[in-house]
Amino acid sequence: MDRRVHAQRPQVVPPELEEVHAGTVTVGCDTAGVSVSTGVSAPESVFDWIDTRAEARAKAGLARQVRPRPADSTDLDLASNDYLGLARDKRVAGAAAAASLRWGAGSTGSRLVTGSTELHTELEYELANFCGTQSALVFSSGYAANLGVLTALSGPGTAIVADQHIHASLIDGTRLSKADVVVAGHCDVPKVAHALATRGKRRALVVTDSVFSVDGDLAPLAELAATCGEHGSALVVDDAHGLGVVGEGGRGAVHAAGLAKAPDVVTTVTLSKSLGAMGGAVLGPSRVIKHLVDTARTFIFDTGLAPSSAAAALAALKVLREEPDRPTRALDVAQDLAFRLKDKGFRVSSPTAAVVSVQAPSPEAAVAWAEGCRAQGVLVGCFRPPSVPDQVSRLRLTARADLTEADVERAVRVISETGASAGAVSRPR
Amino acid sequence: MDRRVHAQRPQVVPPELEEVHAGTVTVGCDTAGVSVSTGVSAPESVFDWIDTRAEARAKAGLARQVRPRPADSTDLDLASNDYLGLARDKRVAGAAAAASLRWGAGSTGSRLVTGSTELHTELEYELANFCGTQSALVFSSGYAANLGVLTALSGPGTAIVADQHIHASLIDGTRLSKADVVVAGHCDVPKVAHALATRGKRRALVVTDSVFSVDGDLAPLAELAATCGEHGSALVVDDAHGLGVVGEGGRGAVHAAGLAKAPDVVTTVTLSKSLGAMGGAVLGPSRVIKHLVDTARTFIFDTGLAPSSAAAALAALKVLREEPDRPTRALDVAQDLAFRLKDKGFRVSSPTAAVVSVQAPSPEAAVAWAEGCRAQGVLVGCFRPPSVPDQVSRLRLTARADLTEADVERAVRVISETGASAGAVSRPR
Repeated sequence: MDRRVHAQRPQVVPPELEEVHAGTVTVGCDTAGVSVSTGVSAPESVFDWIDTRAEARAKAGLARQVRPRPADSTDLDLASNDYLGLARDKRVAGAAAAASLRWGAGSTGSRLVTGSTELHTELEYELANFCGTQSALVFSSGYAANLGVLTALSGPGTAIVADQHIHASLIDGTRLSKADVVVAGHCDVPKVAHALATRGKRRALVVTDSVFSVDGDLAPLAELAATCGEHGSALVVDDAHGLGVVGEGGRGAVHAAGLAKAPDVVTTVTLSKSLGAMGGAVLGPSRVIKHLVDTARTFIFDTGLAPSSAAAALAALKVLREEPDRPTRALDVAQDLAFRLKDKGFRVSSPTAAVVSVQAPSPEAAVAWAEGCRAQGVLVGCFRPPSVPDQVSRLRLTARADLTEADVERAVRVISETGASAGAVSRPR
Repeated sequence: MDRRVHAQRPQVVPPELEEVHAGTVTVGCDTAGVSVSTGVSAPESVFDWIDTRAEARAKAGLARQVRPRPADSTDLDLASNDYLGLARDKRVAGAAAAASLRWGAGSTGSRLVTGSTELHTELEYELANFCGTQSALVFSSGYAANLGVLTALSGPGTAIVADQHIHASLIDGTRLSKADVVVAGHCDVPKVAHALATRGKRRALVVTDSVFSVDGDLAPLAELAATCGEHGSALVVDDAHGLGVVGEGGRGAVHAAGLAKAPDVVTTVTLSKSLGAMGGAVLGPSRVIKHLVDTARTFIFDTGLAPSSAAAALAALKVLREEPDRPTRALDVAQDLAFRLKDKGFRVSSPTAAVVSVQAPSPEAAVAWAEGCRAQGVLVGCFRPPSVPDQVSRLRLTARADLTEADVERAVRVISETGASAGAVSRPR
């Protein structure tokens, strides 16, 4: 694994812009902790503070922009999480369309009222069956699944030991959990063991991504599980970027680590990446799943997933069973992309899944680089502070199983040419 | 408005079951705040505590059950939030199906990477246009919209003044906000004014539902807005149960109160109730919407809404424009239902939107009552502690614009007959 990216000096984010920092410690406000006099604003000026923030963000080159894409775009997509190219697969999109017509456009209610259709149950059965867990429960998003599982499995009597690079939704879950939260470095098993050994609460959860979303590196799941076993802790793994790419037939990183049936491991996944749909799920022991039905707020108080999304995810699982080599192809493309870009002198992560991270010298350079690629019809992700865990700006490329050799060649050519002018090459060839 | 429901003595919830309490103060754990020795559990017994909780829940009659429904159910639905009967409308479901085929089953990425299609932008334009606000931003759910808006508009320098009966997603938003949070009664404007006047932070947000989800009562929005104006506070209104039912042509409770263009009012809505689709949105001043694009974690770090859901919501808005009387019909059905059930001696709320609440004497009676209705083919919501704000169990009925006179008669007959045997009639006819 290429860890150079973590050694680089962090780029500084102005404190007033840290409100969406992906890390655990967040400062977001001008008057933190200070009691102030409440000078009354006129209604027109109640949100004036927003303009001040916006100006600071613009000056720091950190303003964000929504760029709607057309249906008939011919751009080469290296930015989406559609790792297996299934979102527009006719079997998957066709199943979604058929389900809308048969079941309606929405699920019409929360899962415990009218929002559970037979499609949801079938999907839960198939997800558990495919990933090898006892049970599964579908949520409206991976974000909701992560909030639900962390709050339902913790509380003030629990210690949470979290990897430093966990996804924002897991961070929000720890914030809602009322548990003691310790951030134990990144992929640092001894630190996790120490935090567990010195905790002041009886119950504990270790929380990690399997494949980290920004850099694509893999957590040491087997070692973490062994450490949890030694210390009586549960392990919660977000396998959003592992499902469909990692392990036998794409069964995910938890399955690959032999942990799918472990009585103390709970997995969350999304239906919106490899499966090309929308939604999320929690997989694990049946008693945990039943507990979530009874107590997970984001399950109980949210509208059920749309039938079309459940049907699409089901169809995608069927494709995965029929074409077990598709995940390998996505991984091969990622490794090919990384190898070729390293060879051109860029600082590139060594992909363990479909995510390839390429470092940029600054947020401005990253934006210019991504814009240069876009101008030539190649879409790449551009990740900058505060939405990167280590403050290092980079391009985030995603491989897809349906990229051709010619697509990869074109991508490498465009990224290299635009990267050279963005000053991103770190050593001569 | 029928407030008797709030005067009734709360039913007691065992403390160990309060983890999903819809109220703001939540106790969820066995060892709260106490440092304990960390006796190590074997992996098999890490989740043993869940079984203990499940037993307590079963004893208290509070276990929940997922009941998947078939596509061809002939049950009479008085339980869903499909207030306008649009989820299965051919125009809405057809638009969802066509969008899946044209755009793919999923949006493929987060909104700022590849998850924004032209459909999302069109929907944002139409939502703002229909509801009369400057701008709108689509989230993957109403839950996500509420978390996003409360966290992005607050922080440690903010005081949040919340109604006691706000939806669980708003409660979670206040918990994530890092703001000072004050719960100021239910629909109690003087209490809100007092909390604003005595706050220790410069910025403030008053947070309320427009139509409260359990009882269907309406917040005093105009008075709250005036109070906010006097105290330099913003007002955040969850109009999930107002959009499509309340106000001119279903433009919602915020529009009806003349607040759609107010510079200090922000509205959240769902696309999954009256609009028959899935998803949520925030509506308000353009600078607020832009601020959410830059800072709302549930916007930035979540996969974009599926194109089919965006298309369905767009089609539903078109139906609302073409059939502006549909919302009135839903309200008429609700009032008819309430009138007839009151006449039978039940304790019924006076509906201001499509929700009708009927009190039950106990959680067990509520379950038996709802089961009795289901056995006769009438689906009603059954709300029990801890998912009711006042601990009072009840049936929650929802009116739909497409219910016929015969449907209403059948519903009233079945609910009355089963309610009498559940002991829910409070006075003789």
